[in-house]
Amino acid sequence: MQPKFSSITECPVGRALETVGEWWSMLILRDAFQGMTRFDEFEQSLGIAPNILSRRLARLTESGMFIRRRYRDRPPRYEYVLTPKGKDFFPVIVALLGWGNKHLAPGGKTVVLANRDDTCPLDPIIVNAIDMHPVTSTNAVLVPGPRASRGMRQRLASLKAMNPDVAPAGN
Amino acid sequence: MQPKFSSITECPVGRALETVGEWWSMLILRDAFQGMTRFDEFEQSLGIAPNILSRRLARLTESGMFIRRRYRDRPPRYEYVLTPKGKDFFPVIVALLGWGNKHLAPGGKTVVLANRDDTCPLDPIIVNAIDMHPVTSTNAVLVPGPRASRGMRQRLASLKAMNPDVAPAGN
Repeated sequence: MQPKFSSITECPVGRALETVGEWWSMLILRDAFQGMTRFDEFEQSLGIAPNILSRRLARLTESGMFIRRRYRDRPPRYEYVLTPKGKDFFPVIVALLGWGNKHLAPGGKTVVLANRDDTCPLDPIIVNAIDMHPVTSTNAVLVPGPRASRGMRQRLASLKAMNPDVAPAGN
Repeated sequence: MQPKFSSITECPVGRALETVGEWWSMLILRDAFQGMTRFDEFEQSLGIAPNILSRRLARLTESGMFIRRRYRDRPPRYEYVLTPKGKDFFPVIVALLGWGNKHLAPGGKTVVLANRDDTCPLDPIIVNAIDMHPVTSTNAVLVPGPRASRGMRQRLASLKAMNPDVAPAGN
């Protein structure tokens, strides 16, 4: 019998997606990385219904991506400021941007990533911090972490069986 | 009057999210990167309803992430194989994994990224391919690309106005 196991809640990718919520949340975060903090800025940028925006901002605040900060007393007004956890989401947005620019901009790029100081274009790639070698789907693989459940270990072992070119996963 | 402008369809991040569809699609891609190709493999991994899985696989095939390939004739059976466009989505999954492991695994990591050959753990970071300097939300900024519309240029200019520490965007 298969052990009870969820590939969603037990996987950091699944949990990340659950936490962020849905597309609107990613787009709100994208805008936050461009400096937006206020309700009406997000509303205007996204053309999103106020009640949906409100719910998304509340959820992103609850999950620790934003801190909600009062910036005016009368009438009370709040802004949403990225926390360190929120800021750490930046690579996801950069990766989406890079992929979109490569595959979904046949007529040319409308937005590019640039160095903040001199606006020289950046060419973001993922490397292994230890040796600076590129990390790709060809040379990287998922293996059980120290807290993997039995279900997760079995899952990853069965995936290796499907990919005979993948080396054993150690412990 | 504001020019007609969509921060979703005109932005590569927005288009990337539109193309991928929704969470299920990301999780299907995650599993594909682990070597899954067949309907029943995805179904079992994700615990997803067959009609939803079927729709998501069709959409990912239409949008060029998968090629659908017959692997058995009687009865006909198909597998879904990542295209180069699909494989290029890997950094998004890696970024989600890294963020999830950092912020959503308080009890320890259940899955980690490792080198395929020797299963040494990888520490993926985003760097600029040109000089190998890390790319972060502090040193990187979005600027108009060569094909930015007037609406996009105005949008990015107004964002700079909100962030006076951001240098001018050049052309």
